[in-house]
Amino acid sequence: MTLRVALAGLGTVGGEVARLIEMQGEHIAKHAGKPVKITAISARDKNKKRPFSSAGMAWIEHPVELAGHADVDCVVELMGGSEDPAKALALATLKAGKPYITANKALLAHHGVALATLAEEKKVPLYFEAAVAGGIPVIKTLREALAGNVIHEISGILNGTCNFILSTMQETGRGFADVLAEAQRLGYAEADPTFDVDGLDAGHKLVILAALAFGVPVDLAALKAEGIRKISAHDIHFAGELGYNIKLLGHARRSEKGFSMRISPYLVPRSKTLAHIGGPRNAVNIEADPVGGITLTGPGAGAGPTASAVLADIIDCAQGRYAAPFGVPIAHAAALPLLADEDTISSFYLRATVEDRTGVFAEIAEILRDSSISILSILQRSSDKPGTVPLVIITHETSEKAFKEALDKLAKLPSVKEPPTVIRIMHK
Amino acid sequence: MTLRVALAGLGTVGGEVARLIEMQGEHIAKHAGKPVKITAISARDKNKKRPFSSAGMAWIEHPVELAGHADVDCVVELMGGSEDPAKALALATLKAGKPYITANKALLAHHGVALATLAEEKKVPLYFEAAVAGGIPVIKTLREALAGNVIHEISGILNGTCNFILSTMQETGRGFADVLAEAQRLGYAEADPTFDVDGLDAGHKLVILAALAFGVPVDLAALKAEGIRKISAHDIHFAGELGYNIKLLGHARRSEKGFSMRISPYLVPRSKTLAHIGGPRNAVNIEADPVGGITLTGPGAGAGPTASAVLADIIDCAQGRYAAPFGVPIAHAAALPLLADEDTISSFYLRATVEDRTGVFAEIAEILRDSSISILSILQRSSDKPGTVPLVIITHETSEKAFKEALDKLAKLPSVKEPPTVIRIMHK
Repeated sequence: MTLRVALAGLGTVGGEVARLIEMQGEHIAKHAGKPVKITAISARDKNKKRPFSSAGMAWIEHPVELAGHADVDCVVELMGGSEDPAKALALATLKAGKPYITANKALLAHHGVALATLAEEKKVPLYFEAAVAGGIPVIKTLREALAGNVIHEISGILNGTCNFILSTMQETGRGFADVLAEAQRLGYAEADPTFDVDGLDAGHKLVILAALAFGVPVDLAALKAEGIRKISAHDIHFAGELGYNIKLLGHARRSEKGFSMRISPYLVPRSKTLAHIGGPRNAVNIEADPVGGITLTGPGAGAGPTASAVLADIIDCAQGRYAAPFGVPIAHAAALPLLADEDTISSFYLRATVEDRTGVFAEIAEILRDSSISILSILQRSSDKPGTVPLVIITHETSEKAFKEALDKLAKLPSVKEPPTVIRIMHK
Repeated sequence: MTLRVALAGLGTVGGEVARLIEMQGEHIAKHAGKPVKITAISARDKNKKRPFSSAGMAWIEHPVELAGHADVDCVVELMGGSEDPAKALALATLKAGKPYITANKALLAHHGVALATLAEEKKVPLYFEAAVAGGIPVIKTLREALAGNVIHEISGILNGTCNFILSTMQETGRGFADVLAEAQRLGYAEADPTFDVDGLDAGHKLVILAALAFGVPVDLAALKAEGIRKISAHDIHFAGELGYNIKLLGHARRSEKGFSMRISPYLVPRSKTLAHIGGPRNAVNIEADPVGGITLTGPGAGAGPTASAVLADIIDCAQGRYAAPFGVPIAHAAALPLLADEDTISSFYLRATVEDRTGVFAEIAEILRDSSISILSILQRSSDKPGTVPLVIITHETSEKAFKEALDKLAKLPSVKEPPTVIRIMHK
């Protein structure tokens, strides 16, 4: 009566999972109701030094073969990548009627519907607690703990790299490029930072959370994603003067008309918990009925936190505890439309570099008025560039559509010298 | 294929659970995999107006009879009270081999071991998500999501009444009695506030959390509890000057030598999330290996949040998802000793009213030195009482035992005019 686990991928997370199963085996067995044993492993390099003993584990050259291995009850995949071999391994495992546990957000974001459909057809669990927000149990919370709630909104700091960069910019007053270089030196950012700083990593996580929260099919194509490259030290400074911290948020909202999902920098009011999450930490706020608002905070990445989530899934698997992968079975998923821009409401921060002469502000104010956009606050400062000044405007809530129209007109004014910077504002 | 639920107790929470099952039945059925229906109810007053339709529900005069009712698959108890009828109903339900769902923290704190033993023997689930921290899923997080972790420490704001009182004292500078009276007017505090302000309510919750976290048997007798009556506006003011907010915390810690559980006011450094939880909200911080630290925040009481937790348990029950009530089966619970005072380490805040003459501080400093207690900071202020001054000392970490010895000597000094106020400090 042992749970025999196959492990595909032996990088930092895979190595830590195997080490913990070896070192904390008794603790895990008490919670799992039976011993947990890794019986088969697969990774790129057979001869690399690992932090655990692989004695008694079968080495499998091609990971997909783990699915059919006779001594394997479930497969844990920590390789990453949305396509083969991860995808082929997932399909083969579920087809074989065996539970699949993964930390692979790209796989779920791209193929979540197909995999969940197969898992439900085969009546086997598909677990992915480690795919979103590392050690924070947000998948289980949405899938099980809030299952009786109608969820209206999710706002999350889902990418530790971006949060580290923005927090450090705020603390030091330094610019984006400078802090990115530091993050790369510290190992918080990759040599090619695109996946993190352009919001793609956070986007994979958000579409998974939105599917769980709203009972809609995972749909990466419906995501709008914008990263943090455009955020300058000026923006962080001005936002601070106005009582906000700038954060890259994943934000998903459902109304009666439909839902929206967006990765975007936001000005977060300092009254909100999310404004104060510093460094590489993650946090997710969930607004739901009847619970109200709850916030979960913790480490969003790293070997230990990710291994914690994988172990929880392994223990659930050993105990036979599982739900439909996205809470609601795929056959009952809601056909909720994506909200059109005119139905998406937000307040905006707008920073423009404008000509330093009488009448410029009147021109801008007229354009906003003509689009029925009202102004909440204005900051105008002296400038180091002769002849121009920075102008910052915070609007009241307005539709995306009206704001975009006004912005197009503003950008065409001869007195507006550079394309304005626009950042959404998280509602109070 | 319907889950037939008996509901004992139809107060604000019971009424809300029944209303939600009626109003959000389709949503619940999708997550539960089957319809959920209340088939039998019991409460004190049959004729009270309720927020749901009781058509088709059997009215049962004596709640204990719900356990044996033919049309009942599981019992939800929202009556409260550690003894009969709640205790008798729990025992009868589990003996009948039916799942028991409760929000009753007193029942669990007093009889958790007996009930869990019976549930395990009968192989039926015992759920109590709603018993601790209302809408925050801390039970499921400890029992399932962190099952692979070794948990070292839990610190929680577990009583909304006390947090409201302390937050309001801090915001307004008003005294305890004054703010307590306001809390009573607002309905945040009972006419007899003892259960909340003396730490008993938080204590019931902490012993449940500690049992789940450390795998020890629930043991209310091992709890040390102290409330907030002694906290004055002076203390909140001085703490603020030194960079701390005062919170009533439940704090449980495990070391190799044993564990401790304590409800007590703490000075919480403003660098900690817990320092910033205002109003009646609850929050729990968990420190564990390998996850690191995670914090869950949300509404700790009220009909909606509590009903959210009860519905999650009902849905888990419908799906057959459950774990041992306290994570580890009672037979495998750890026999961890309670830590003796000399093994409990803390920093302390000490406020004394002392004679205003040369040499007084030297007398106090000598006593502390003789107990090997070193001083981190000192505040001395002018006073409105002639001849005396308030003196505030923050110590470095020291053993409880050494500190108590020094305190006894200090209190006996003729120059110390009133019994000093002592408050623990949460470590950084």
